[in-house]
Amino acid sequence: MTRFKLTVEYDGTGTVGWQRQDTGVSIQSLLEKAIFDIAGEVVTVTGAGRTDAGVHAMAQVAHFDLSKDFAADKIRDGLNHFLRPGAVSVILAEVAAPDFHARFSATGRHYFYRILCRRAPPVLDRNRVWHVVRGLDAEAMHAGAQHLVGQHDFTTFRSSECQAKSPVKTLDKLDVRRAGDEIHIEASARSFLHNQVRSMVGSLKMVGEGKWQPRDMAKALEAKDRSACGVVAPPEGLYLVGVDY
Amino acid sequence: MTRFKLTVEYDGTGTVGWQRQDTGVSIQSLLEKAIFDIAGEVVTVTGAGRTDAGVHAMAQVAHFDLSKDFAADKIRDGLNHFLRPGAVSVILAEVAAPDFHARFSATGRHYFYRILCRRAPPVLDRNRVWHVVRGLDAEAMHAGAQHLVGQHDFTTFRSSECQAKSPVKTLDKLDVRRAGDEIHIEASARSFLHNQVRSMVGSLKMVGEGKWQPRDMAKALEAKDRSACGVVAPPEGLYLVGVDY
Repeated sequence: MTRFKLTVEYDGTGTVGWQRQDTGVSIQSLLEKAIFDIAGEVVTVTGAGRTDAGVHAMAQVAHFDLSKDFAADKIRDGLNHFLRPGAVSVILAEVAAPDFHARFSATGRHYFYRILCRRAPPVLDRNRVWHVVRGLDAEAMHAGAQHLVGQHDFTTFRSSECQAKSPVKTLDKLDVRRAGDEIHIEASARSFLHNQVRSMVGSLKMVGEGKWQPRDMAKALEAKDRSACGVVAPPEGLYLVGVDY
Repeated sequence: MTRFKLTVEYDGTGTVGWQRQDTGVSIQSLLEKAIFDIAGEVVTVTGAGRTDAGVHAMAQVAHFDLSKDFAADKIRDGLNHFLRPGAVSVILAEVAAPDFHARFSATGRHYFYRILCRRAPPVLDRNRVWHVVRGLDAEAMHAGAQHLVGQHDFTTFRSSECQAKSPVKTLDKLDVRRAGDEIHIEASARSFLHNQVRSMVGSLKMVGEGKWQPRDMAKALEAKDRSACGVVAPPEGLYLVGVDY
Protein backbone atom coordinates (compact mmCIF):
# COMPACT_ATOMS: atom_id res chain seq x y z
CA MET A 1 0.00 0.00 0.00
CA THR A 2 1.39 3.39 -1.00
CA ARG A 3 0.11 6.70 0.30
CA PHE A 4 0.04 9.53 -2.23
CA LYS A 5 -0.10 13.24 -1.52
CA LEU A 6 -1.79 15.45 -4.14
CA THR A 7 -1.65 19.21 -4.59
CA VAL A 8 -4.80 20.20 -6.43
CA GLU A 9 -6.19 23.30 -8.17
CA TYR A 10 -9.93 23.61 -8.67
CA ASP A 11 -12.75 25.86 -9.74
CA GLY A 12 -15.51 25.50 -7.16
CA THR A 13 -18.15 27.11 -9.42
CA GLY A 14 -21.12 24.80 -9.90
CA THR A 15 -19.80 22.17 -7.49
CA VAL A 16 -21.14 21.26 -4.03
CA GLY A 17 -17.63 21.93 -2.69
CA TRP A 18 -14.84 19.61 -1.61
CA GLN A 19 -16.90 17.00 0.20
CA ARG A 20 -18.85 14.18 -1.46
CA GLN A 21 -22.60 14.80 -1.30
CA ASP A 22 -25.68 13.32 -2.93
CA THR A 23 -26.82 16.72 -4.15
CA GLY A 24 -24.18 17.36 -6.82
CA VAL A 25 -20.64 17.10 -8.07
CA SER A 26 -17.89 17.40 -5.44
CA ILE A 27 -14.14 17.84 -5.92
CA GLN A 28 -13.56 14.76 -3.76
CA SER A 29 -15.79 12.56 -5.95
CA LEU A 30 -14.20 13.85 -9.18
CA LEU A 31 -10.77 12.86 -7.84
CA GLU A 32 -11.99 9.50 -6.55
CA LYS A 33 -13.55 8.72 -9.94
CA ALA A 34 -10.36 9.67 -11.81
CA ILE A 35 -8.28 7.48 -9.46
CA PHE A 36 -10.63 4.58 -10.23
CA ASP A 37 -10.19 5.34 -13.94
CA ILE A 38 -6.40 5.01 -13.79
CA ALA A 39 -5.97 2.37 -11.07
CA GLY A 40 -9.23 0.44 -10.90
CA GLU A 41 -9.25 0.91 -7.12
CA VAL A 42 -12.06 2.45 -5.08
CA VAL A 43 -10.41 4.90 -2.69
CA THR A 44 -11.34 7.67 -0.31
CA VAL A 45 -9.52 10.95 -0.92
CA THR A 46 -9.01 13.04 2.23
CA GLY A 47 -8.49 16.78 1.86
CA ALA A 48 -6.79 19.28 4.15
CA GLY A 49 -9.81 21.57 4.08
CA ARG A 50 -13.45 20.94 3.23
CA THR A 51 -14.10 24.00 1.08
CA ASP A 52 -17.71 25.05 0.49
CA ALA A 53 -19.64 25.12 -2.77
CA GLY A 54 -18.23 27.83 -5.05
CA VAL A 55 -14.93 28.17 -3.15
CA HIS A 56 -11.76 27.66 -5.22
CA ALA A 57 -8.35 26.18 -4.53
CA MET A 58 -4.97 27.02 -6.01
CA ALA A 59 -3.30 24.39 -3.83
CA GLN A 60 -5.59 22.13 -1.80
CA VAL A 61 -3.72 19.12 -0.42
CA ALA A 62 -5.19 15.61 -0.26
CA HIS A 63 -4.08 12.03 0.30
CA PHE A 64 -5.20 8.52 -0.68
CA ASP A 65 -3.80 4.98 -0.70
CA LEU A 66 -3.23 2.62 -3.62
CA SER A 67 -2.30 -1.05 -3.45
CA LYS A 68 -0.95 -1.04 -7.03
CA ASP A 69 2.46 0.43 -7.80
CA PHE A 70 2.47 3.78 -9.60
CA ALA A 71 5.13 6.42 -10.22
CA ALA A 72 3.95 9.70 -8.72
CA ASP A 73 4.31 11.57 -12.03
CA LYS A 74 2.13 8.97 -13.75
CA ILE A 75 -0.53 9.56 -11.09
CA ARG A 76 -0.46 13.31 -11.81
CA ASP A 77 -0.56 12.99 -15.60
CA GLY A 78 -3.05 10.11 -15.57
CA LEU A 79 -5.45 11.93 -13.24
CA ASN A 80 -5.21 15.08 -15.36
CA HIS A 81 -5.99 13.04 -18.46
CA PHE A 82 -9.22 11.74 -16.95
CA LEU A 83 -10.10 15.02 -15.20
CA ARG A 84 -9.80 17.30 -18.23
CA PRO A 85 -11.47 19.42 -19.27
CA GLY A 86 -13.07 19.91 -15.91
CA ALA A 87 -13.08 21.63 -12.57
CA VAL A 88 -9.95 19.97 -11.17
CA SER A 89 -6.27 19.79 -12.07
CA VAL A 90 -3.53 17.93 -10.18
CA ILE A 91 -0.51 20.23 -9.84
CA LEU A 92 1.68 17.74 -8.03
CA ALA A 93 1.56 14.08 -6.94
CA GLU A 94 4.10 12.74 -4.45
CA VAL A 95 4.66 9.52 -2.53
CA ALA A 96 3.96 10.32 1.15
CA ALA A 97 4.91 8.64 4.41
CA PRO A 98 2.34 6.01 5.49
CA ASP A 99 1.34 8.17 8.46
CA PHE A 100 0.95 11.40 6.44
CA HIS A 101 -2.60 12.74 6.82
CA ALA A 102 -3.70 15.66 4.65
CA ARG A 103 -6.05 16.96 7.33
CA PHE A 104 -4.54 16.01 10.68
CA SER A 105 -0.88 16.53 9.75
CA ALA A 106 -1.52 20.07 8.53
CA THR A 107 0.13 22.79 10.61
CA GLY A 108 -1.08 25.80 8.66
CA ARG A 109 -3.75 26.77 6.15
CA HIS A 110 -3.65 29.84 3.93
CA TYR A 111 -6.64 31.48 2.30
CA PHE A 112 -6.90 34.38 -0.14
CA TYR A 113 -10.00 36.49 -0.79
CA ARG A 114 -10.57 38.85 -3.74
CA ILE A 115 -13.10 41.71 -3.74
CA LEU A 116 -13.53 43.66 -7.01
CA CYS A 117 -14.71 47.24 -6.39
CA ARG A 118 -16.18 48.92 -9.48
CA ARG A 119 -19.55 49.63 -11.09
CA ALA A 120 -19.13 47.25 -14.04
CA PRO A 121 -19.69 43.54 -13.43
CA PRO A 122 -16.63 41.32 -13.90
CA VAL A 123 -16.39 39.33 -17.11
CA LEU A 124 -12.85 37.92 -17.20
CA ASP A 125 -13.09 37.22 -13.45
CA ARG A 126 -16.73 36.19 -13.22
CA ASN A 127 -17.11 33.65 -10.37
CA ARG A 128 -13.56 34.55 -9.26
CA VAL A 129 -14.22 37.68 -7.16
CA TRP A 130 -16.82 39.25 -4.88
CA HIS A 131 -18.20 42.10 -6.96
CA VAL A 132 -18.89 45.20 -4.84
CA VAL A 133 -20.00 48.33 -6.70
CA ARG A 134 -18.56 50.90 -4.28
CA GLY A 135 -14.97 51.53 -3.25
CA LEU A 136 -13.82 50.14 0.11
CA ASP A 137 -11.32 51.65 2.56
CA ALA A 138 -8.57 49.00 2.62
CA GLU A 139 -6.63 50.72 5.40
CA ALA A 140 -9.63 50.77 7.73
CA MET A 141 -10.32 47.13 6.88
CA HIS A 142 -6.73 46.18 7.69
CA ALA A 143 -6.90 48.06 11.00
CA GLY A 144 -10.16 46.28 11.86
CA ALA A 145 -8.69 42.91 10.86
CA GLN A 146 -5.85 43.22 13.38
CA HIS A 147 -8.37 42.96 16.25
CA LEU A 148 -9.00 39.35 15.18
CA VAL A 149 -5.37 38.21 15.02
CA GLY A 150 -4.33 35.93 17.89
CA GLN A 151 -6.10 33.29 19.97
CA HIS A 152 -9.80 34.02 20.42
CA ASP A 153 -13.24 32.49 20.76
CA PHE A 154 -14.48 32.96 17.16
CA THR A 155 -18.14 32.06 17.86
CA THR A 156 -19.25 35.27 16.10
CA PHE A 157 -17.44 34.26 12.92
CA ARG A 158 -18.54 30.63 12.86
CA SER A 159 -21.34 29.03 10.84
CA SER A 160 -24.23 27.70 12.92
CA GLU A 161 -23.50 24.39 11.17
CA CYS A 162 -19.87 24.29 12.31
CA GLN A 163 -18.99 20.93 13.84
CA ALA A 164 -15.72 21.89 15.54
CA LYS A 165 -15.62 21.00 19.24
CA SER A 166 -14.21 24.35 20.29
CA PRO A 167 -14.77 27.84 18.86
CA VAL A 168 -11.29 28.87 20.05
CA LYS A 169 -8.77 29.26 17.22
CA THR A 170 -5.49 31.10 16.72
CA LEU A 171 -5.55 33.43 13.73
CA ASP A 172 -1.93 34.02 12.65
CA LYS A 173 -2.54 36.58 9.91
CA LEU A 174 -5.38 38.66 8.49
CA ASP A 175 -3.92 41.18 6.04
CA VAL A 176 -5.97 43.52 3.86
CA ARG A 177 -4.48 45.56 1.03
CA ARG A 178 -5.59 47.39 -2.10
CA ALA A 179 -4.45 46.07 -5.50
CA GLY A 180 -5.76 48.33 -8.28
CA ASP A 181 -9.56 48.12 -8.15
CA GLU A 182 -9.41 45.01 -5.99
CA ILE A 183 -9.12 44.40 -2.26
CA HIS A 184 -6.97 41.37 -1.38
CA ILE A 185 -7.27 39.62 1.97
CA GLU A 186 -4.82 36.97 3.22
CA ALA A 187 -5.79 34.76 6.16
CA SER A 188 -3.54 32.18 7.83
CA ALA A 189 -4.14 29.83 10.77
CA ARG A 190 -3.44 26.26 11.82
CA SER A 191 -7.13 25.64 11.17
CA PHE A 192 -10.33 27.61 10.67
CA LEU A 193 -13.93 27.20 11.78
CA HIS A 194 -16.63 26.58 9.18
CA ASN A 195 -17.30 29.82 7.23
CA GLN A 196 -14.76 31.68 9.40
CA VAL A 197 -12.89 33.39 6.56
CA ARG A 198 -16.06 34.40 4.71
CA SER A 199 -17.62 35.65 7.98
CA MET A 200 -14.55 37.75 8.79
CA VAL A 201 -14.40 39.14 5.23
CA GLY A 202 -18.10 40.03 5.28
CA SER A 203 -17.65 41.98 8.51
CA LEU A 204 -14.51 43.65 7.15
CA LYS A 205 -16.55 44.87 4.17
CA MET A 206 -18.79 46.70 6.68
CA VAL A 207 -15.63 48.43 7.92
CA GLY A 208 -14.54 49.18 4.35
CA GLU A 209 -17.90 50.83 3.65
CA GLY A 210 -17.63 52.95 6.79
CA LYS A 211 -20.72 51.33 8.31
CA TRP A 212 -18.51 49.84 11.04
CA GLN A 213 -15.48 51.42 12.67
CA PRO A 214 -12.33 49.23 12.79
CA ARG A 215 -12.93 48.89 16.56
CA ASP A 216 -16.33 47.30 15.85
CA MET A 217 -14.48 44.16 14.72
CA ALA A 218 -13.26 43.74 18.32
CA LYS A 219 -16.78 44.33 19.63
CA ALA A 220 -18.21 41.72 17.28
CA LEU A 221 -15.52 39.24 18.37
CA GLU A 222 -16.13 39.94 22.08
CA ALA A 223 -19.89 39.44 21.65
CA LYS A 224 -19.25 35.71 20.96
CA ASP A 225 -22.61 35.75 19.24
CA ARG A 226 -23.28 34.72 15.63
CA SER A 227 -25.82 37.54 15.25
CA ALA A 228 -23.03 40.09 15.84
CA CYS A 229 -21.39 39.04 12.53
CA GLY A 230 -21.80 41.18 9.43
CA VAL A 231 -22.84 39.63 6.14
CA VAL A 232 -21.09 36.42 5.14
CA ALA A 233 -18.97 37.04 2.05
CA PRO A 234 -19.93 34.92 -0.99
CA PRO A 235 -17.84 31.85 -1.86
CA GLU A 236 -16.66 32.93 -5.31
CA GLY A 237 -13.98 35.31 -3.98
CA LEU A 238 -12.35 32.69 -1.73
CA TYR A 239 -9.30 30.56 -2.57
CA LEU A 240 -7.47 27.93 -0.52
CA VAL A 241 -3.92 28.82 -1.56
CA GLY A 242 -1.72 26.57 0.52
CA VAL A 243 -1.37 24.06 3.35
CA ASP A 244 1.69 23.66 5.57
CA TYR A 245 2.95 20.36 7.03
CA MET B 1 -25.96 63.79 -32.03
CA THR B 2 -23.65 62.84 -29.17
CA ARG B 3 -20.52 60.75 -29.58
CA PHE B 4 -19.83 58.33 -26.73
CA LYS B 5 -16.52 56.69 -25.86
CA LEU B 6 -16.68 53.29 -24.17
CA THR B 7 -13.97 51.40 -22.30
CA VAL B 8 -14.88 47.74 -22.49
CA GLU B 9 -13.76 44.45 -20.88
CA TYR B 10 -14.52 41.19 -22.64
CA ASP B 11 -13.92 37.47 -22.67
CA GLY B 12 -13.19 36.52 -26.28
CA THR B 13 -13.77 32.78 -25.63
CA GLY B 14 -16.41 31.39 -27.96
CA THR B 15 -16.79 34.65 -29.90
CA VAL B 16 -15.69 35.39 -33.46
CA GLY B 17 -13.73 38.34 -32.06
CA TRP B 18 -14.37 42.07 -32.06
CA GLN B 19 -15.71 42.44 -35.59
CA ARG B 20 -19.27 41.65 -36.69
CA GLN B 21 -19.40 38.47 -38.80
CA ASP B 22 -22.10 36.13 -40.06
CA THR B 23 -20.38 33.11 -38.54
CA GLY B 24 -20.97 33.82 -34.85
CA VAL B 25 -21.25 36.23 -31.97
CA SER B 26 -18.94 39.25 -32.06
CA ILE B 27 -18.18 41.76 -29.33
CA GLN B 28 -19.19 44.56 -31.70
CA SER B 29 -22.62 43.04 -32.35
CA LEU B 30 -23.25 42.38 -28.64
CA LEU B 31 -22.58 46.07 -27.92
CA GLU B 32 -24.69 47.25 -30.87
CA LYS B 33 -27.59 45.09 -29.73
CA ALA B 34 -27.35 46.39 -26.14
CA ILE B 35 -27.28 50.00 -27.43
CA PHE B 36 -30.44 49.28 -29.41
CA ASP B 37 -31.98 47.79 -26.24
CA ILE B 38 -31.42 50.95 -24.21
CA ALA B 39 -31.80 53.64 -26.90
CA GLY B 40 -33.82 52.11 -29.72
CA GLU B 41 -31.21 53.33 -32.20
CA VAL B 42 -29.32 51.21 -34.72
CA VAL B 43 -25.68 52.24 -34.45
CA THR B 44 -22.27 51.11 -35.58
CA VAL B 45 -19.73 50.70 -32.78
CA THR B 46 -16.13 51.31 -33.87
CA GLY B 47 -13.33 49.75 -31.83
CA ALA B 48 -9.69 50.77 -31.43
CA GLY B 49 -8.51 47.29 -32.32
CA ARG B 50 -10.19 44.40 -34.11
CA THR B 51 -9.19 41.57 -31.79
CA ASP B 52 -9.40 38.00 -33.12
CA ALA B 53 -11.65 35.17 -31.95
CA GLY B 54 -10.63 34.09 -28.45
CA VAL B 55 -8.61 37.23 -27.69
CA HIS B 56 -9.65 39.15 -24.56
CA ALA B 57 -9.74 42.81 -23.58
CA MET B 58 -9.34 44.46 -20.21
CA ALA B 59 -9.79 47.89 -21.78
CA GLN B 60 -10.77 48.00 -25.44
CA VAL B 61 -11.97 51.47 -26.48
CA ALA B 62 -14.89 52.07 -28.84
CA HIS B 63 -17.15 54.90 -29.98
CA PHE B 64 -20.67 55.34 -31.33
CA ASP B 65 -23.19 58.14 -31.86
CA LEU B 66 -26.68 58.58 -30.41
CA SER B 67 -29.27 61.15 -31.40
CA LYS B 68 -31.13 60.81 -28.08
CA ASP B 69 -29.80 62.44 -24.93
CA PHE B 70 -28.24 60.12 -22.35
CA ALA B 71 -26.05 60.68 -19.30
CA ALA B 72 -22.80 58.74 -19.78
CA ASP B 73 -23.25 56.83 -16.51
CA LYS B 74 -26.73 55.71 -17.62
CA ILE B 75 -25.19 54.40 -20.84
CA ARG B 76 -22.66 52.36 -18.84
CA ASP B 77 -25.18 50.94 -16.36
CA GLY B 78 -27.88 50.41 -19.00
CA LEU B 79 -25.53 48.56 -21.35
CA ASN B 80 -24.27 46.40 -18.48
CA HIS B 81 -27.87 45.56 -17.56
CA PHE B 82 -28.59 44.26 -21.06
CA LEU B 83 -25.15 42.66 -21.53
CA ARG B 84 -25.12 40.61 -18.33
CA PRO B 85 -24.39 37.86 -17.76
CA GLY B 86 -22.30 37.68 -20.87
CA ALA B 87 -18.97 38.15 -22.55
CA VAL B 88 -18.85 41.96 -22.32
CA SER B 89 -18.83 44.58 -19.57
CA VAL B 90 -18.66 48.36 -19.99
CA ILE B 91 -16.09 49.72 -17.53
CA LEU B 92 -16.55 53.35 -18.48
CA ALA B 93 -18.79 55.47 -20.74
CA GLU B 94 -17.87 59.07 -21.50
CA VAL B 95 -19.14 61.82 -23.78
CA ALA B 96 -16.45 62.33 -26.44
CA ALA B 97 -15.67 65.17 -28.83
CA PRO B 98 -17.56 64.86 -32.15
CA ASP B 99 -14.28 64.19 -33.97
CA PHE B 100 -13.04 61.54 -31.53
CA HIS B 101 -12.44 58.26 -33.37
CA ALA B 102 -11.64 55.12 -31.37
CA ARG B 103 -9.48 53.70 -34.14
CA PHE B 104 -7.95 56.67 -35.97
CA SER B 105 -7.41 58.92 -32.93
CA ALA B 106 -5.49 56.21 -31.06
CA THR B 107 -1.81 57.02 -30.48
CA GLY B 108 -0.85 53.83 -28.64
CA ARG B 109 -2.09 50.29 -28.12
CA HIS B 110 -0.99 48.02 -25.28
CA TYR B 111 -1.23 44.24 -25.29
CA PHE B 112 -0.47 41.68 -22.58
CA TYR B 113 0.24 37.98 -23.14
CA ARG B 114 0.21 35.23 -20.49
CA ILE B 115 1.98 31.88 -20.88
CA LEU B 116 1.48 29.31 -18.09
CA CYS B 117 4.42 26.90 -17.81
CA ARG B 118 3.62 23.71 -15.88
CA ARG B 119 2.58 20.11 -16.47
CA ALA B 120 -0.95 20.42 -15.07
CA PRO B 121 -3.59 22.03 -17.28
CA PRO B 122 -5.04 25.32 -16.01
CA VAL B 123 -8.46 25.22 -14.38
CA LEU B 124 -8.95 28.63 -12.76
CA ASP B 125 -7.31 30.25 -15.82
CA ARG B 126 -8.66 28.01 -18.53
CA ASN B 127 -9.02 30.05 -21.76
CA ARG B 128 -7.00 32.82 -20.10
CA VAL B 129 -3.43 31.61 -20.73
CA TRP B 130 -1.33 29.71 -23.26
CA HIS B 131 -0.59 26.43 -21.50
CA VAL B 132 2.96 25.22 -22.19
CA VAL B 133 4.09 22.12 -20.33
CA ARG B 134 7.81 22.95 -20.15
CA GLY B 135 9.58 25.84 -18.50
CA LEU B 136 10.71 28.73 -20.70
CA ASP B 137 13.82 30.91 -20.35
CA ALA B 138 12.30 34.36 -19.79
CA GLU B 139 15.65 36.15 -19.90
CA ALA B 140 16.52 34.67 -23.30
CA MET B 141 13.04 35.57 -24.55
CA HIS B 142 13.46 39.15 -23.34
CA ALA B 143 16.86 39.41 -25.04
CA GLY B 144 15.37 38.07 -28.26
CA ALA B 145 12.41 40.45 -28.02
CA GLN B 146 14.68 43.50 -27.97
CA HIS B 147 15.72 42.78 -31.59
CA LEU B 148 12.14 43.63 -32.63
CA VAL B 149 11.84 46.95 -30.81
CA GLY B 150 11.96 50.00 -33.10
CA GLN B 151 10.79 50.71 -36.65
CA HIS B 152 10.95 47.64 -38.87
CA ASP B 153 9.30 45.83 -41.76
CA PHE B 154 7.30 43.22 -39.79
CA THR B 155 6.33 41.08 -42.80
CA THR B 156 7.59 37.95 -40.97
CA PHE B 157 5.24 38.61 -38.05
CA ARG B 158 2.16 39.49 -40.09
CA SER B 159 -0.81 37.32 -40.97
CA SER B 160 -1.17 36.51 -44.67
CA GLU B 161 -4.67 38.01 -44.29
CA CYS B 162 -3.37 41.34 -42.96
CA GLN B 163 -4.93 44.27 -44.83
CA ALA B 164 -2.55 47.01 -43.69
CA LYS B 165 -1.05 48.97 -46.58
CA SER B 166 2.48 48.84 -45.17
CA PRO B 167 4.26 46.15 -43.14
CA VAL B 168 6.42 48.84 -41.51
CA LYS B 169 5.51 49.51 -37.87
CA THR B 170 7.26 50.99 -34.86
CA LEU B 171 7.29 48.64 -31.87
CA ASP B 172 7.78 50.75 -28.74
CA LYS B 173 8.04 47.96 -26.17
CA LEU B 174 8.30 44.17 -26.06
CA ASP B 175 9.10 43.13 -22.49
CA VAL B 176 9.24 39.55 -21.24
CA ARG B 177 9.43 38.60 -17.58
CA ARG B 178 8.80 35.62 -15.33
CA ALA B 179 5.95 35.83 -12.78
CA GLY B 180 5.82 32.60 -10.74
CA ASP B 181 5.03 29.78 -13.17
CA GLU B 182 3.89 32.28 -15.81
CA ILE B 183 5.70 34.27 -18.48
CA HIS B 184 4.25 37.74 -19.02
CA ILE B 185 4.83 39.68 -22.23
CA GLU B 186 3.95 43.36 -22.69
CA ALA B 187 3.80 44.84 -26.19
CA SER B 188 3.18 48.50 -27.03
CA ALA B 189 2.99 50.32 -30.37
CA ARG B 190 0.96 53.01 -32.10
CA SER B 191 -0.60 50.17 -34.08
CA PHE B 192 0.04 46.52 -34.85
CA LEU B 193 -0.31 44.35 -37.95
CA HIS B 194 -2.83 41.51 -37.97
CA ASN B 195 -1.59 38.67 -35.73
CA GLN B 196 1.63 40.59 -35.01
CA VAL B 197 1.62 40.10 -31.24
CA ARG B 198 0.72 36.41 -31.43
CA SER B 199 3.36 35.87 -34.17
CA MET B 200 6.05 37.58 -32.09
CA VAL B 201 5.05 35.61 -28.95
CA GLY B 202 5.08 32.31 -30.83
CA SER B 203 8.61 32.97 -32.07
CA LEU B 204 9.71 34.09 -28.59
CA LYS B 205 8.49 30.74 -27.25
CA MET B 206 11.00 29.08 -29.62
CA VAL B 207 13.69 31.19 -27.93
CA GLY B 208 12.35 30.28 -24.47
CA GLU B 209 12.60 26.58 -25.34
CA GLY B 210 16.18 27.00 -26.55
CA LYS B 211 15.25 25.97 -30.11
CA TRP B 212 16.11 29.48 -31.26
CA GLN B 213 18.87 31.72 -29.99
CA PRO B 214 17.82 35.29 -29.07
CA ARG B 215 19.68 36.47 -32.20
CA ASP B 216 17.38 34.31 -34.33
CA MET B 217 14.60 36.83 -33.67
CA ALA B 218 16.64 39.39 -35.64
CA LYS B 219 17.25 36.88 -38.42
CA ALA B 220 13.52 36.12 -38.66
CA LEU B 221 12.73 39.85 -38.79
CA GLU B 222 15.37 40.47 -41.47
CA ALA B 223 14.01 37.63 -43.60
CA LYS B 224 10.81 39.65 -44.20
CA ASP B 225 9.19 36.34 -44.97
CA ARG B 226 6.12 34.90 -43.25
CA SER B 227 7.62 31.39 -43.38
CA ALA B 228 10.50 32.56 -41.15
CA CYS B 229 8.01 33.05 -38.27
CA GLY B 230 7.76 30.47 -35.50
CA VAL B 231 4.39 29.11 -34.41
CA VAL B 232 1.61 31.68 -33.95
CA ALA B 233 0.66 31.82 -30.26
CA PRO B 234 -2.97 30.89 -29.53
CA PRO B 235 -5.50 33.68 -28.90
CA GLU B 236 -6.49 32.72 -25.33
CA GLY B 237 -3.34 34.20 -23.73
CA LEU B 238 -3.74 37.62 -25.38
CA TYR B 239 -5.36 40.71 -23.80
CA LEU B 240 -5.84 44.22 -25.20
CA VAL B 241 -5.10 46.14 -21.99
CA GLY B 242 -5.21 49.77 -23.03
CA VAL B 243 -5.42 52.37 -25.78
CA ASP B 244 -3.85 55.85 -25.66
CA TYR B 245 -5.31 58.98 -27.25
